[in-house]
Amino acid sequence: MLFFESDYTEGAHEKILQRLAETNLESLPGYGSDRYCESAKSKIRNACRCPQAEVYFLAGGTQTNQIVIDAMLSSWEGVAAAATGHVNVHEAGAIEHSGHKVLSLPHHEGKLDAGELEAFLDEFWQDENREHMVFPGMVYISHPTEYGTLYTKQELERLSQVCGRFSIPLYLDGARLGYGLMSRETDVTLPVIARCCDVFYIGGTKVGALCGEAVVFTKKNTPPHFLTMIKQKGALLAKGRLLGIQFDTLFTDDLYFQISDHAIAMAELLKEGLRKKGCRFLLESPTNQQFVILENSRLETLKKHVAMSFWEKAGPDHTVMRIATSWATREEDVKKLIDLM
Amino acid sequence: MLFFESDYTEGAHEKILQRLAETNLESLPGYGSDRYCESAKSKIRNACRCPQAEVYFLAGGTQTNQIVIDAMLSSWEGVAAAATGHVNVHEAGAIEHSGHKVLSLPHHEGKLDAGELEAFLDEFWQDENREHMVFPGMVYISHPTEYGTLYTKQELERLSQVCGRFSIPLYLDGARLGYGLMSRETDVTLPVIARCCDVFYIGGTKVGALCGEAVVFTKKNTPPHFLTMIKQKGALLAKGRLLGIQFDTLFTDDLYFQISDHAIAMAELLKEGLRKKGCRFLLESPTNQQFVILENSRLETLKKHVAMSFWEKAGPDHTVMRIATSWATREEDVKKLIDLM
Amino acid sequence: MLFFESDYTEGAHEKILQRLAETNLESLPGYGSDRYCESAKSKIRNACRCPQAEVYFLAGGTQTNQIVIDAMLSSWEGVAAAATGHVNVHEAGAIEHSGHKVLSLPHHEGKLDAGELEAFLDEFWQDENREHMVFPGMVYISHPTEYGTLYTKQELERLSQVCGRFSIPLYLDGARLGYGLMSRETDVTLPVIARCCDVFYIGGTKVGALCGEAVVFTKKNTPPHFLTMIKQKGALLAKGRLLGIQFDTLFTDDLYFQISDHAIAMAELLKEGLRKKGCRFLLESPTNQQFVILENSRLETLKKHVAMSFWEKAGPDHTVMRIATSWATREEDVKKLIDLM
Amino acid sequence: MLFFESDYTEGAHEKILQRLAETNLESLPGYGSDRYCESAKSKIRNACRCPQAEVYFLAGGTQTNQIVIDAMLSSWEGVAAAATGHVNVHEAGAIEHSGHKVLSLPHHEGKLDAGELEAFLDEFWQDENREHMVFPGMVYISHPTEYGTLYTKQELERLSQVCGRFSIPLYLDGARLGYGLMSRETDVTLPVIARCCDVFYIGGTKVGALCGEAVVFTKKNTPPHFLTMIKQKGALLAKGRLLGIQFDTLFTDDLYFQISDHAIAMAELLKEGLRKKGCRFLLESPTNQQFVILENSRLETLKKHVAMSFWEKAGPDHTVMRIATSWATREEDVKKLIDLM
Repeated sequence: MLFFESDYTEGAHEKILQRLAETNLESLPGYGSDRYCESAKSKIRNACRCPQAEVYFLAGGTQTNQIVIDAMLSSWEGVAAAATGHVNVHEAGAIEHSGHKVLSLPHHEGKLDAGELEAFLDEFWQDENREHMVFPGMVYISHPTEYGTLYTKQELERLSQVCGRFSIPLYLDGARLGYGLMSRETDVTLPVIARCCDVFYIGGTKVGALCGEAVVFTKKNTPPHFLTMIKQKGALLAKGRLLGIQFDTLFTDDLYFQISDHAIAMAELLKEGLRKKGCRFLLESPTNQQFVILENSRLETLKKHVAMSFWEKAGPDHTVMRIATSWATREEDVKKLIDLM
Repeated sequence: MLFFESDYTEGAHEKILQRLAETNLESLPGYGSDRYCESAKSKIRNACRCPQAEVYFLAGGTQTNQIVIDAMLSSWEGVAAAATGHVNVHEAGAIEHSGHKVLSLPHHEGKLDAGELEAFLDEFWQDENREHMVFPGMVYISHPTEYGTLYTKQELERLSQVCGRFSIPLYLDGARLGYGLMSRETDVTLPVIARCCDVFYIGGTKVGALCGEAVVFTKKNTPPHFLTMIKQKGALLAKGRLLGIQFDTLFTDDLYFQISDHAIAMAELLKEGLRKKGCRFLLESPTNQQFVILENSRLETLKKHVAMSFWEKAGPDHTVMRIATSWATREEDVKKLIDLM
Repeated sequence: MLFFESDYTEGAHEKILQRLAETNLESLPGYGSDRYCESAKSKIRNACRCPQAEVYFLAGGTQTNQIVIDAMLSSWEGVAAAATGHVNVHEAGAIEHSGHKVLSLPHHEGKLDAGELEAFLDEFWQDENREHMVFPGMVYISHPTEYGTLYTKQELERLSQVCGRFSIPLYLDGARLGYGLMSRETDVTLPVIARCCDVFYIGGTKVGALCGEAVVFTKKNTPPHFLTMIKQKGALLAKGRLLGIQFDTLFTDDLYFQISDHAIAMAELLKEGLRKKGCRFLLESPTNQQFVILENSRLETLKKHVAMSFWEKAGPDHTVMRIATSWATREEDVKKLIDLM
Repeated sequence: MLFFESDYTEGAHEKILQRLAETNLESLPGYGSDRYCESAKSKIRNACRCPQAEVYFLAGGTQTNQIVIDAMLSSWEGVAAAATGHVNVHEAGAIEHSGHKVLSLPHHEGKLDAGELEAFLDEFWQDENREHMVFPGMVYISHPTEYGTLYTKQELERLSQVCGRFSIPLYLDGARLGYGLMSRETDVTLPVIARCCDVFYIGGTKVGALCGEAVVFTKKNTPPHFLTMIKQKGALLAKGRLLGIQFDTLFTDDLYFQISDHAIAMAELLKEGLRKKGCRFLLESPTNQQFVILENSRLETLKKHVAMSFWEKAGPDHTVMRIATSWATREEDVKKLIDLM
């Protein structure tokens, strides 16, 4: 059986496990105040070329989105996001559960358009009845998006500019950030993101960690008492070391980038192989998620050999399936998959 | 330096790390649907002698309390707890953040008194204005309590009876459950708890795991769509295996009980040693947390050699310090600590 | 100055004020337990031909929507509504503030299409990832809609059928219900609504009352402890008589229907007059709200003589303005308005 | 039957009804932007001798407490209140429902002690674990209290000073404020309250209005977008005139004070009469609520002739009953009540 269902089907990169074992019996203070958390934060600040960055570690993506968004929004504000955004569809209403509306905007292969965003914000602020409406208090994007697509540097700068004009933070969900950064077709780097975004997170769970996301506030703009808000939402791990050690390892000797690069190499190999075999794709994804259009008649057979994710139907006879590579994908499995298709 | 500050200063039991490494590259489905979660659940059911138990894994104690309490209460209900209860004091208002009042009752060395609870419930239901008040919809206890004390089997049964009379669930916070179960002075077993409580959790974070708590619903009473509620609160780990493998290991060959027993042995050794040296205790704790009354004049010196937790002042010249043993405590350290005191 | 800005610019029907004065010094119990509330409920049950109806009085529309929706939904559920629905746009996020997502569906002149609703629900229940999504737990419609349009009896029955198939309640927001019921072009009566909907409210604020909406649960399906939930949301008036007396008056001798009929007669007069003068309308509204397309060049002059509401721009040179008649509209004012246009 | 059950058993002062009738057919803008609201605000500012005061009108007491407290607290903060405070007991958990803990402090006949408050705040800020606790972000008092008692000017100043030291607002619930201000035994005036409190409300519902409370922010400290937060909680009346006209009337020619004075005169008459007949009181209340200790054997007979409120049991043979006078109490009824007792 080949596993291409998602990028979180294996445990952690071996160096992480090794480091957890090496440090295991050290007595460390709790709640993220240990030296590994400090070290990881410092390395992340360096990687972002953002010395003033304030870094926090959380356990998962939905948790991170919920806490960051709720902490940065006022009660009367909502968050603008693409209709396809993870916060709008696949988080069981976590944002609304914390009291805020997701203000849904049109998406373009998962991306927000800066011009449309600006028009939306302009219209809101011109509306005389706006005090009866939800104020747009933040913009949420993901990079890569749900469709594996990426913003260009220029697009990010433009979004940043629009947010700046309206004095609202730009928040980037980087659940798969490594795979975006190592794409063969991007001019966006971690420092670019740190410069354009007011806050973002570097995904660990899907990029080699057992769990963990690193939230980065780039403008000395951590909400006051953020730690207490983390605690209040049940998200403060007693053994914060678990997150600190993992991110410290990921950001030592560029491990995060190397393993992300591997996933991209595997995705490129896959794309090339499948193209040669005449496969069609839903769209051109430059990252680790590929959306392949398959004939329903072939699907049943394939499913016996490969685990993939159902994405959507494509007419009566075809189905779009998502194939994900990851830090853990083996080249031989990609080749086997190409052979099978 | 000796570390007795808490029971979560080290990583995980070595068998857990070993098991994480062994299973690391297995491709497993996400969100707790993997075979290790299944296996752990089955072992927990056996240990509880409760074949119908429904088990869920969460990452931490506050998270577990918040999710279980919010999921089991209706909007108009609050949870009754001892004034000293963790949910009432040290969770940054997580329960109120999810909309529910903690109905505070007097404590007796951290414990609720069943008679007082019953009187409180009787009074509520006789109050003609009760529709303007918060309905007591659940009873929260911890075992061991914040003071390291334990309920007797009879006390648990009595609480269970009172809850039954008012048709509200009894919920036991077992953050340190192992240390309670292995106390030299208890008649309470895991099956007793499973019988008396409607829901409880078996603490992992403080008993040898990197993170993780196992929630056990004992009466086929899991709230509907509990998984979605976990997701909605940001608490659903993509790699559920992290929790499953840990609990599977802890409940293989009684590891959970053995390592808890070690902590109790260390606590007993400590108590005996300190008593011989004339130390006074705030109260008689039969578990891994000991509350020692120290002269302020000696405290500064001691702090250079031992990490302990400040508990409370005891008059102008004394301070109560909490000393915690754990699964990771070394006998030699206990002896050194006794020598120091 | 002529006032056609909205249907809540005057106080209350004179009979209501008279009745408030007559009963003013009677000593009555609080919180809605007085005899006028009882009498009003009884009359509403009769008017609905729904003897088992359970009726509650609240002060305003947003309050009613928030309380009814929150009380009927479980934590994991959201409410499906037209994108233009009042709850989705003009309630400052009151629904999300109480923790629930508004699941936005396409609108057709403000109306939901039963077929589209059914397709949406089918798709949700077929989605294997639905446990990570917001469950559609209720359907919200308004009648008249934001555009003044009305469902036909058949459309209501079809929506009711779809909701029934998925076992979720159909909720009708009747802020302007009287104006809908007395439209010249409707086959929907109060008993039809009571039969098709699981819960709805009869708007008072916009139909002759100082404040007040009557919530009607039609299937013996009032959520448990609904009164406490009203209190908990700060919506329980101590002097419930204020609402009871108003609705008792409105439902005595068909006053509610008579005054609604007057507003419709005024709207018809207006439509006819404007049509004769060549006015264009955004759509064909059979109720008290009319949406007139005006040249921007004429708008400034008109505004000096008539108060209307801005609705939306219609190209570069035209604007849609909303003109509302009400129970208080005077025929002479309608005629003056026609003359002006 | 004599009615002394509460101070909200009658409608409104006749001048209010008269004014509602006089202004009834004026076309006014909605949502509190009408001229009567403006006029009432201006008169309240004058009465408070607080020209910078910002005034908002809401419909009821629990609603006001919930909105003011939630709007002024940050997510990580709770409100300190006497254990007997209305927000802690009789609002169905409205404060917790909006996410905030009520930090309960000891009461002294319903009052907070400034020294105890200061000690509590000092202790909190010295606690090294305070980031895991609920931050005290506001102090709530009521004046008169639940027990009808009053703070002295000096006590209010002291509370104000303590709040100032910790930079948290002092909030006064004035549901029965008129009765407090007109007490024969008080040195507290409306300007004193405006000076000592950061925010307070002037109760209308219990002092002659059909409904309505006037919130006064005294330090140019209205929370941003307060109107939107009112809307979001469903508390924004479309016909804001209903509240504006009532408060405009109450603050014209000192009506509020005169009718409050009447209630106090009636309470004094009652106290004197009952004392002469040997009645005992639970405590010395200088306002309109009196707490009389009655023999259970007499209670049943009395209940046939007088409506009073059960307060609490006083031993096996006695009961404390609350007797409330109000703006509507007739002297002849007080005399009849004295005769009966």
